[in-house]
Amino acid sequence: MDIKAYMQQVGRQARAASRLMAKADTQTKNQALNAIADALLRDADTLLAANKRDMDQAHELEPAMLDRLLITSQTIESMAAGLRQIASLPDPVGEMGDFKFRPSGIQLGKMRVPLGVIGIIYEARPNVTADAAGLCIKSGNATILRGGREAFYCNQAIALCVSEGLKIAGLPATAVQIIETPDRAAVGELITMCKFVDVIVPRGGKSLTARIAADARVPVIKHLDGICHVYIDDEADPVKAIAISDNAKTHRYGTCNTMETLLVHETVAELILPPLAAIYAAKGVELRGCAKTLAVLPHTNAATEEDWATEYLAPILAIKIVSDLDEAIEHINTWGSHHTDAIVTENYTKSRQFLREVDSSSVMVNASTRFADGFEYGLGAEIGISTDKIHARGPVGLNGLTSEKWIVFGNGEIRR
Amino acid sequence: MDIKAYMQQVGRQARAASRLMAKADTQTKNQALNAIADALLRDADTLLAANKRDMDQAHELEPAMLDRLLITSQTIESMAAGLRQIASLPDPVGEMGDFKFRPSGIQLGKMRVPLGVIGIIYEARPNVTADAAGLCIKSGNATILRGGREAFYCNQAIALCVSEGLKIAGLPATAVQIIETPDRAAVGELITMCKFVDVIVPRGGKSLTARIAADARVPVIKHLDGICHVYIDDEADPVKAIAISDNAKTHRYGTCNTMETLLVHETVAELILPPLAAIYAAKGVELRGCAKTLAVLPHTNAATEEDWATEYLAPILAIKIVSDLDEAIEHINTWGSHHTDAIVTENYTKSRQFLREVDSSSVMVNASTRFADGFEYGLGAEIGISTDKIHARGPVGLNGLTSEKWIVFGNGEIRR
Repeated sequence: MDIKAYMQQVGRQARAASRLMAKADTQTKNQALNAIADALLRDADTLLAANKRDMDQAHELEPAMLDRLLITSQTIESMAAGLRQIASLPDPVGEMGDFKFRPSGIQLGKMRVPLGVIGIIYEARPNVTADAAGLCIKSGNATILRGGREAFYCNQAIALCVSEGLKIAGLPATAVQIIETPDRAAVGELITMCKFVDVIVPRGGKSLTARIAADARVPVIKHLDGICHVYIDDEADPVKAIAISDNAKTHRYGTCNTMETLLVHETVAELILPPLAAIYAAKGVELRGCAKTLAVLPHTNAATEEDWATEYLAPILAIKIVSDLDEAIEHINTWGSHHTDAIVTENYTKSRQFLREVDSSSVMVNASTRFADGFEYGLGAEIGISTDKIHARGPVGLNGLTSEKWIVFGNGEIRR
Repeated sequence: MDIKAYMQQVGRQARAASRLMAKADTQTKNQALNAIADALLRDADTLLAANKRDMDQAHELEPAMLDRLLITSQTIESMAAGLRQIASLPDPVGEMGDFKFRPSGIQLGKMRVPLGVIGIIYEARPNVTADAAGLCIKSGNATILRGGREAFYCNQAIALCVSEGLKIAGLPATAVQIIETPDRAAVGELITMCKFVDVIVPRGGKSLTARIAADARVPVIKHLDGICHVYIDDEADPVKAIAISDNAKTHRYGTCNTMETLLVHETVAELILPPLAAIYAAKGVELRGCAKTLAVLPHTNAATEEDWATEYLAPILAIKIVSDLDEAIEHINTWGSHHTDAIVTENYTKSRQFLREVDSSSVMVNASTRFADGFEYGLGAEIGISTDKIHARGPVGLNGLTSEKWIVFGNGEIRR
């Protein structure tokens, strides 16, 4: 198989399909989404059998990866429900607004438009195949999907349902293409075909994302670390401070919006840290503290600089006591990953300073960092969470897969 | 000189300065802009002398480049006026909006924030140095400027004024740094220092931009071709059609928003083309037509496929007769550069189809393509016109140099 020729063909088809998707109306796109959901439910047994075939060959995967590869009847139901939910969201494409007259007489505004062709590279997680296809269809884009090869058979089975749904709605089946070869060279082509691909979204571990970002010529919407902080100010409400710090760390350990470092103002450390440490101890969370923390919590392990830069994704928490808000902000901007950071305070001026100066995609006052995701933000679904500053920051939903063009309404105006 | 070490130092300083710029208030930034304007006017003689030194050494430049390198008293006055105009624009940084309550109780909105550090690479045009510095200061960014080496002395003189103005306002002089070495390796470092640079804006010819885009690891906001079209529909008002087609081509030949290809519906070609051809002939515009055009305008040169893909930047116009709106849109999306395209029509439905389906950064109805620039759009000034789809499309002003972060106001909410 000539990988380059194959990928060029996939790219050309995607570009052609993207033009048709861009002009598809809302009802047509929703019809496709609902038809795909119907097909997935109807073919549940086929999907489960394909997934079993994948699982049988995936002995070498780690347990966490196997867990993501496995689908059940419930997974299929939730894929279908996800597609129906995307169908129920407002269509961002063609939204217009901000029309103002200019002194020349022209009336200037903006229209929301699809990006074009979106390449998505992800691990062996079949549910991502359905989610990503759904988001790209609704946002009027064509997409090229490259899932982990361990999910090959299940992805192919899902792809049949997707292409059936597209055809039922009269949309091109090539609007969603799944790369058929396990050859890694296909990824190299995908991320460099600027002529055919407008943006790449890698979904997976940091090393996969970093490698793709380093080699891509196509723009990448990427998510690297989630090193999130909660800062407990000296004017924090202790009840909110403890509830938020508990929730941000222990609600789920493996998510990118989980708190990894807790910052505490020195004047409230003795008040807040002991009861909080008791909660963490009861839940089996290992604490690693700075020198000042060890003075308050003597039986705690010492943190090193490396801890400030680590995304544990595990029941481990770094704690640092700071002498003021400026030191907290400086720590977050230096060691954080510009993902999600929260302050707990009752002080109006300090809350404004934190919001303004913390350079992260989500900045919160008196709320758990765990809220930073597409569902909680009402985006309906997310293709990922961007830690970039260009184009999209934070959870990327339908709007993040679109752009805006300028619209001019004239009446024969010419430039003088 | 160790270029890598030098550029790392420049980058580190820019990153540090960007933090201070991000939190600078509107009044402070405006004070700096006005102080720079004052210094430029005061040092006019020094600037002119430095520019003379540059001009004396620039024998090898083409006349058009020499023209851009030359500054006069008037250039200096207009640089100063430009900076004062930027000072008078609303500050985009810190703008907040769209706050809505979510079912969880959190209130979610967005805040506009600077991108951070912006690298600008441009030709030997001293006025760009002042414009770019002004836009970056107002938008709360730090910037690293790399101008054409032929403008070395003049850029250094402008840089002194910029750094004086920053200091007067209490802002870091390193917020605007001009690369001091003519060594090209400095550009290679600038466009790959992802740790210190958030976005690169190349301003110059297509080959410069394409080379930078190919080698950059930092995201690039780029402008490639301006192959703009006017399509005269069969339901066009002939008076508007002729005025717009004249203006879009002949108002200025060398600008990126100048029309390069005229598309005409076949049923009005015999009505519109002869009088239009007479206007073009009187202004010395060479016409190159498709086969159908040659039947209407027999003394015209024949166009080849290459003409559809050429940005002439000269008094040359390609003309194609099409049989309907679909063919016009197909031609524009295939051969255009996604910059600016206009339809002339009185038909409501066709105007909507054109606006929706033409995939360009500016799409117009009954107006000249020449309106597509930052001043006409009311952005006050522009750092360039983006033909990308990601982040910023079309004229890039202050808002294009910013991003938005999510803001959450809570009252102790935790995720259930």
